[in-house]
Amino acid sequence: MPKFSHKTEQLEFSPIRKLVDDAIDAKHRGLEVFHLNIGQPDISAPDESLKKITNNTLTYLPYGQSEGTEEYRRTLCDYYQEHHIHLSPKDIIVTTGSSEALVFCFNVICNPKDQVIIPEPFYANYNGFARSCDVDVIPIVSEFDSDFKLLPVQAFEEKVTDKTRAIVLCNPNNPTGYICHRQEIIDLCELALKHDFFLIVDEVYREFIYDGSSHYSVLSSAKYAQHTIMIDSVSKRYSLCGARVGSIASRNHKFLQQVLKFAQLRLSPPTLDMIISQAAIQSSKKYLMNAVDEYRIRKEVAVEFLSRIPNVRVVAPRGAFFCMAELPIKDAEDFSKFLLTSFSDNHQTVMLAPGNGFYSDDCYGKNQIRVAFVLEKTKLKRAIQIIEKGLESYIARLND
Amino acid sequence: MPKFSHKTEQLEFSPIRKLVDDAIDAKHRGLEVFHLNIGQPDISAPDESLKKITNNTLTYLPYGQSEGTEEYRRTLCDYYQEHHIHLSPKDIIVTTGSSEALVFCFNVICNPKDQVIIPEPFYANYNGFARSCDVDVIPIVSEFDSDFKLLPVQAFEEKVTDKTRAIVLCNPNNPTGYICHRQEIIDLCELALKHDFFLIVDEVYREFIYDGSSHYSVLSSAKYAQHTIMIDSVSKRYSLCGARVGSIASRNHKFLQQVLKFAQLRLSPPTLDMIISQAAIQSSKKYLMNAVDEYRIRKEVAVEFLSRIPNVRVVAPRGAFFCMAELPIKDAEDFSKFLLTSFSDNHQTVMLAPGNGFYSDDCYGKNQIRVAFVLEKTKLKRAIQIIEKGLESYIARLND
Repeated sequence: MPKFSHKTEQLEFSPIRKLVDDAIDAKHRGLEVFHLNIGQPDISAPDESLKKITNNTLTYLPYGQSEGTEEYRRTLCDYYQEHHIHLSPKDIIVTTGSSEALVFCFNVICNPKDQVIIPEPFYANYNGFARSCDVDVIPIVSEFDSDFKLLPVQAFEEKVTDKTRAIVLCNPNNPTGYICHRQEIIDLCELALKHDFFLIVDEVYREFIYDGSSHYSVLSSAKYAQHTIMIDSVSKRYSLCGARVGSIASRNHKFLQQVLKFAQLRLSPPTLDMIISQAAIQSSKKYLMNAVDEYRIRKEVAVEFLSRIPNVRVVAPRGAFFCMAELPIKDAEDFSKFLLTSFSDNHQTVMLAPGNGFYSDDCYGKNQIRVAFVLEKTKLKRAIQIIEKGLESYIARLND
Repeated sequence: MPKFSHKTEQLEFSPIRKLVDDAIDAKHRGLEVFHLNIGQPDISAPDESLKKITNNTLTYLPYGQSEGTEEYRRTLCDYYQEHHIHLSPKDIIVTTGSSEALVFCFNVICNPKDQVIIPEPFYANYNGFARSCDVDVIPIVSEFDSDFKLLPVQAFEEKVTDKTRAIVLCNPNNPTGYICHRQEIIDLCELALKHDFFLIVDEVYREFIYDGSSHYSVLSSAKYAQHTIMIDSVSKRYSLCGARVGSIASRNHKFLQQVLKFAQLRLSPPTLDMIISQAAIQSSKKYLMNAVDEYRIRKEVAVEFLSRIPNVRVVAPRGAFFCMAELPIKDAEDFSKFLLTSFSDNHQTVMLAPGNGFYSDDCYGKNQIRVAFVLEKTKLKRAIQIIEKGLESYIARLND
């Protein structure tokens, strides 16, 4: 049998992925499983978006431009303009989801064993993207007890080496719901400028802010043109996860020219999905206002009902779709498996995302879970009730 | 300005890509440009495929399974069954185009500076995929003068080193139209088995065969289960290039398990496009018969009219959408540029793919072009007439 590459052997399935088969088994046993494990919105996409293709008159699907259609990129610019981010279509390359966007970035800026600094906990796949490009993630820990506040710029600077190629942020943050202050972004921009590396910010949750704070984009200021990159996607904003349409925006055109080489290799993003995404972005502004209102309600339900469970602590998220909770147990991965394999309440159970999957080393966050509040409030309340009952049962079993 | 990675700097834009701006300029000057440069079919996709989405009742687009829906993979199996290839859904991972499929393969099986042997000329992006994974392509030249016949297995074996991780074929071949004989595939399977590496065959043009020969898939025999990989895509078969739905099939489940790690990182292939592709595969068999008949006519027109141009030689392709032609000039890339920038006939011109883009070193194939016969025959005849007139004008200018 031929051998596999070192980087492949080192890539690990995340703790969530290890539970997927258990969830399938649970369903086969007749259980209803509430999925709090994935940021898969269940609300409708804008009417205008999917209608666009039911009305389509295409007779075949040609390749599109590798960088995305001019029309789509112009639509994105108009949208960014409303957020006081002034870009032109030449500043944007459309990607097949924000996943591809990050892989392109790492491929373009990093040699093997180069480093990217990422505040931890972070979106589990950041680690995977980095490893798949043979890049090392240098974590910088935001603490549960300080509401996952970003550490000051000095803490980042201490991690900088001659192999540092970028700092990567997610803002608003998945999984913590933290939102960076304007000054925090500017400080990190200055650090990137000083040490001549990139600040890459994943802004896919831009609109989903619940505490009235305003979002400051990494591309707000043209001063840091050569050192800043914004990652975006329509997945979460418009419930179009399966469209696989993301983007990379930067005013550094030499960087984008390098990205274009990778974009041309894979020919083009999916043609129809770009049409759908464009219609979504051009849809009524009310759509997003309603969506944010809906998630605000879910956030409140999640925080309130999780907090009521004895000895469970929650960091109330300020944005995005997730909250981190600490459970009164040692091993949330084991508990998550228990919920799927050995527990049910009235033929229902819950799939959770174990917290350790969001850390660079899975020995951290072992008593934490990430809850995606992507279910409507009645289901969400019921799911949290199941967690509570499951915890009681799990703890009783441990004490047996 | 931050630096870019070595592999990025080494990635080159292909000769075709260098002409794209010239083609856009030509159109801005009011010229009609016939595109013989790209394998972009212009015939309609199966009616059933795009109708499937005009009838869709989806209200949002969720992530799909990372490996593709079970339903889609089962449909692929039924299709393969008709081609005497016996697979189960577990043998298949759906990818975002065959481009992603090849990148996944290289990532899984190659460490940096490992080698893959590829008969040359080859699909231009093979080189790019390899370089993007820091893999070296070891070419093995098929000669224009021997109709691009595959060299015997001994010639491949001479190229094998301890860094060889795979042989990659395209069968039927882009750009040469060569079709491997059953025994050629078996010989290479035996070589892969002997030296414990993979034989990867890109079979996206499976049906497009014009000389009555039958296609022998690399997965036809289960004997080589651990050492064979088939790449596929709906792009060419059903005029769905923009769907970006490809696949990797192999009976080596340890290999597929590694591929799945990369597939999970990018979450899922596009949801709607998989639905469209499934409907295409399930469409009437007549669709493909008609498509092949249409391409057969185009192939004949291309070969006949190109051969009639004084001092132009053509290797008649036995399959796929392309033929290679040798022109009576030294630099086909310069000629291609000339056609777009300094020539027109009745406000029309042609975009060609310079032959050197299909070789590992662009000093080869300099007097060759690849002609994609993807236009209906009247347009194709006219386009070839323009090449003839352009050649006269180009040669006269050189002699001035």
